[in-house]
Amino acid sequence: MVKNTITIGIIGFGTVGSGTVKILLNNREILRERTGFDLLLRRISDLDIGRDRGIKLPEGILTADAGDILDDPDIDIVVELIGGIYPSKDFILRAVRNRKHVVTANKALLATEGNEVFQEAEKFGVEVGFEASVAGGIPIIKVIREGLVANKILSVYGIINGTSNYILSRMTEEGIEFAHALKEAQKLGYAEADPTFDVEGIDSAHKLTILASLAYNMPLCYADVYKEGITRITPQDIAFASELGYKIKLLTIAKAADEEVELRVHPTMIPADYLISKVDGVFNAIYVEGDAVGATLYYGRGAGDLPTGSAIVSDIVDIARNMRMGAIGRVPLIKTSPSVLKVRRMDEVQSMYYFRFSAFDSPGVLSKISGILGDNNISIASVIQKGRRVGGAVPLVVLTHRAREKDVLRAITSIDNLPVVTDRTHFIRVEGNEG
Amino acid sequence: MVKNTITIGIIGFGTVGSGTVKILLNNREILRERTGFDLLLRRISDLDIGRDRGIKLPEGILTADAGDILDDPDIDIVVELIGGIYPSKDFILRAVRNRKHVVTANKALLATEGNEVFQEAEKFGVEVGFEASVAGGIPIIKVIREGLVANKILSVYGIINGTSNYILSRMTEEGIEFAHALKEAQKLGYAEADPTFDVEGIDSAHKLTILASLAYNMPLCYADVYKEGITRITPQDIAFASELGYKIKLLTIAKAADEEVELRVHPTMIPADYLISKVDGVFNAIYVEGDAVGATLYYGRGAGDLPTGSAIVSDIVDIARNMRMGAIGRVPLIKTSPSVLKVRRMDEVQSMYYFRFSAFDSPGVLSKISGILGDNNISIASVIQKGRRVGGAVPLVVLTHRAREKDVLRAITSIDNLPVVTDRTHFIRVEGNEG
Repeated sequence: MVKNTITIGIIGFGTVGSGTVKILLNNREILRERTGFDLLLRRISDLDIGRDRGIKLPEGILTADAGDILDDPDIDIVVELIGGIYPSKDFILRAVRNRKHVVTANKALLATEGNEVFQEAEKFGVEVGFEASVAGGIPIIKVIREGLVANKILSVYGIINGTSNYILSRMTEEGIEFAHALKEAQKLGYAEADPTFDVEGIDSAHKLTILASLAYNMPLCYADVYKEGITRITPQDIAFASELGYKIKLLTIAKAADEEVELRVHPTMIPADYLISKVDGVFNAIYVEGDAVGATLYYGRGAGDLPTGSAIVSDIVDIARNMRMGAIGRVPLIKTSPSVLKVRRMDEVQSMYYFRFSAFDSPGVLSKISGILGDNNISIASVIQKGRRVGGAVPLVVLTHRAREKDVLRAITSIDNLPVVTDRTHFIRVEGNEG
Repeated sequence: MVKNTITIGIIGFGTVGSGTVKILLNNREILRERTGFDLLLRRISDLDIGRDRGIKLPEGILTADAGDILDDPDIDIVVELIGGIYPSKDFILRAVRNRKHVVTANKALLATEGNEVFQEAEKFGVEVGFEASVAGGIPIIKVIREGLVANKILSVYGIINGTSNYILSRMTEEGIEFAHALKEAQKLGYAEADPTFDVEGIDSAHKLTILASLAYNMPLCYADVYKEGITRITPQDIAFASELGYKIKLLTIAKAADEEVELRVHPTMIPADYLISKVDGVFNAIYVEGDAVGATLYYGRGAGDLPTGSAIVSDIVDIARNMRMGAIGRVPLIKTSPSVLKVRRMDEVQSMYYFRFSAFDSPGVLSKISGILGDNNISIASVIQKGRRVGGAVPLVVLTHRAREKDVLRAITSIDNLPVVTDRTHFIRVEGNEG
């Protein structure tokens, strides 16, 4: 018999929980009209059931005990929105084993423990929806997994951490230091008191892990993702980048390369006239290139109660449609069996590079530095050398042609050991067409 | 029994047909890995089966008779790629009545005859996929219908005619006339010998009709869409727009307004710093604003063999998944029963406006013109008056606050009747935040 009401329990009544609840209550009629069935919010659990979230809930919905949802035989879909690994993982596995479908926004959990979750879901014949785990309201999971299913994915470039993008945007607009921009972001609620996950690229790497698994049909492999944050980016580097026609963004990169795939998160210089360079503030964007479709880009809010709630509810609808049609497993979950595709070791990755050397302004410095670069198979595309301060240190900026990371690290070690070099060399990887 | 092979027949072996065939043949293995089943290209029909398309086909696939596909009991999905209304409509209805699922890129047919097609499909219990009918490879149909299902859609703005966008981009970059840019587009194969459908907004209106039906859950209503092309746009207007901080784009607009919806296609001035203003050349982009998700944007190639083929094959996969799961009708087709939502009459639409008046440079002209505007409830936001040519005609440019189309048309009639006015007034509607 076709069920005309699908019942939902939500664990975690924070920001995203509130957004999801608002949508389910306010847009219930629209959802019914579009789907032909009813989504009934049956239970919400949270440790704090006293706080007023400004939402008028039907009587008896709130509970402090997640078990009231996980073990309720009348709940079809469990939405996990508490984040973190514990007790989220236990809750999700318990829901799965109770043969409930799961919707989650928990990228940290999926990136690190997802293979186990998905295997268990497959075993128990339930769905796990995770549209909300990457890029908030942008339906990028559905786009990659279904919309672009016909394509061999050549590359996926993402700006998928709003906090970092906000900080870099402010640094670019105002010429301020990282620490200053971070404080601003914290004041506005865009950055947490402990910003490590966002500014060190960890959150981006979690999301990249999920996108890569879909794009390249491989198991989740967070441990293999190279990550580097934005804490060492300076206004000076941003200014030089701008002078060279580039913007600096914290970019997630997944790229097919022969029989391997590159998975990396790091500050990246991108040509300023690329569309993705114009994605500023807390917005997210994902550029996906397929062998058939060519270049595509998806843009929107990557966080927030209602944008993320939009993704949660789209997953609920998807699963509800499958439930009613007996079509669970219609789109396979993430692949968990080993893949032939290997993740390329970071030191084998090739890229263009921006170097900022700090050296005494003495004759022969450029020749020494360029000599070491040449010895390491790194060829120079352009040089900026500005100002003269005889006897003092000046920045020397070099853009390279495509070079190998391993060679670059070796060259920098040699250069930083030169007596004329006064400070550690800064380098930023550069994407775009080779000049 | 679950079918492990889904068989496909393609009617029309032109550009999109070739792209679809290439993808089905070249990416067969990837598709099998992602879906767990096989897509078998069984038959291709075309009037011209002699021409070499540079594709190595298996023996015995080509036929000159579409009936070999439409009446073949072993074909599951018929892909219609001949375009136009006849005989496409007959072919599609015949396929539907033979209980075959249909995939089509035919926006002209769907926009004008779609309600009948979808009703018939519902009656016979088959799917009709039309992802390829709007914005080529961008999965915008899936995004609106599934990805953003949780949202009340506030507005959909589209640049969805690559030909017009190419022409306007060239006019903007080079300061050339429409006719010149059109010739260039024709030479490059971006415009047809008869460019009417593209440059008069007809193709855009077809696509808007389809998007609006999904966004607002209403029947297809092409006849109610206001349309105006780009043939009267001049380099002078583009230059003034640029001076005022705007770009001119052929925009499709669907917008919820009280209990009505605005559906219109016309050249539109948009603030130059909006992301959609940076979509140039043959690229397409659709901006969708939902009550939950906020602002989102989708960008990619709107035409071409492989990009459009990517959308065709994604529909094939979607339908195949439903077939195998017994989940036909999982996502409802377009609503064909009457909607409570009415399309707003164009003369009731409100917008900001750009006017370029041509008037003798004599004292009191501005006062006369602004008087007439004021009498018609149109208030002025800014004015550009340049150069002096005593006794000669000069352009007078005015940007207005929000005004009603009806009032604007009445004011222009009065102004164009003034003896000091030397030429028809040009006007362009303006979108963006009111200044």
